[in-house]
Amino acid sequence: MLLIVRKDLKMGKGKIGAQCGHATLGAFERAMKQPRSAAWIAHWQKFGQKKVCLQVSGEDELRLCGAFLADAGVPVYIVADAGHTQVDPGTETVLGAGPAPSAIIDAVTGPKGTMPLRLLN
Amino acid sequence: MLLIVRKDLKMGKGKIGAQCGHATLGAFERAMKQPRSAAWIAHWQKFGQKKVCLQVSGEDELRLCGAFLADAGVPVYIVADAGHTQVDPGTETVLGAGPAPSAIIDAVTGPKGTMPLRLLN
Repeated sequence: MLLIVRKDLKMGKGKIGAQCGHATLGAFERAMKQPRSAAWIAHWQKFGQKKVCLQVSGEDELRLCGAFLADAGVPVYIVADAGHTQVDPGTETVLGAGPAPSAIIDAVTGPKGTMPLRLLN
Repeated sequence: MLLIVRKDLKMGKGKIGAQCGHATLGAFERAMKQPRSAAWIAHWQKFGQKKVCLQVSGEDELRLCGAFLADAGVPVYIVADAGHTQVDPGTETVLGAGPAPSAIIDAVTGPKGTMPLRLLN
């Protein structure tokens, strides 16, 4: 599972943690509704539910990456924050994607992918 | 839902995001198995799935807080990290707790609670 965080919002650690929680559950629930994901979920749960945080420069990049991942069949969920703290209401903060096989995800966000992304630092 | 993060591990933003994702799903799955949580989950889902990140100074405080919350009937899940990056295998990093009513959670971690905790900064 990928958690793709907007770097431009300059969110603090606590904010990022909460938004990644939203993104995880959102993507997982979306995956549960997608029949082809059943085997991916089972494999992911068996092997430690891997999660990786990546970063994008802003909303356009977040959405574009979401479109590529969705086209590849990966369950995608974008968190629209309620805006109680740090960001305006409705701001898209983090994209959750997966679970899905590494090969499918890497073809989008890996070093040789359509849209290579860096780890969130 | 609370996501309680160990400050002493000095985890980076990406690490915290991934661990909070684990904690969210872990606590949620625990809550789903606890019959009394059903109404709490329904209310939480209806009102935006609130998540708050708090901090503790280390493992002892993490476990003590988990014990208080569990005693209060709150679903609790502690993430033991696989240790691929930044921390040793089996390190307890983040505690997920809830969903549960604010009054029950605040009686433990709120300003006047048994074990008041600060927001993760």
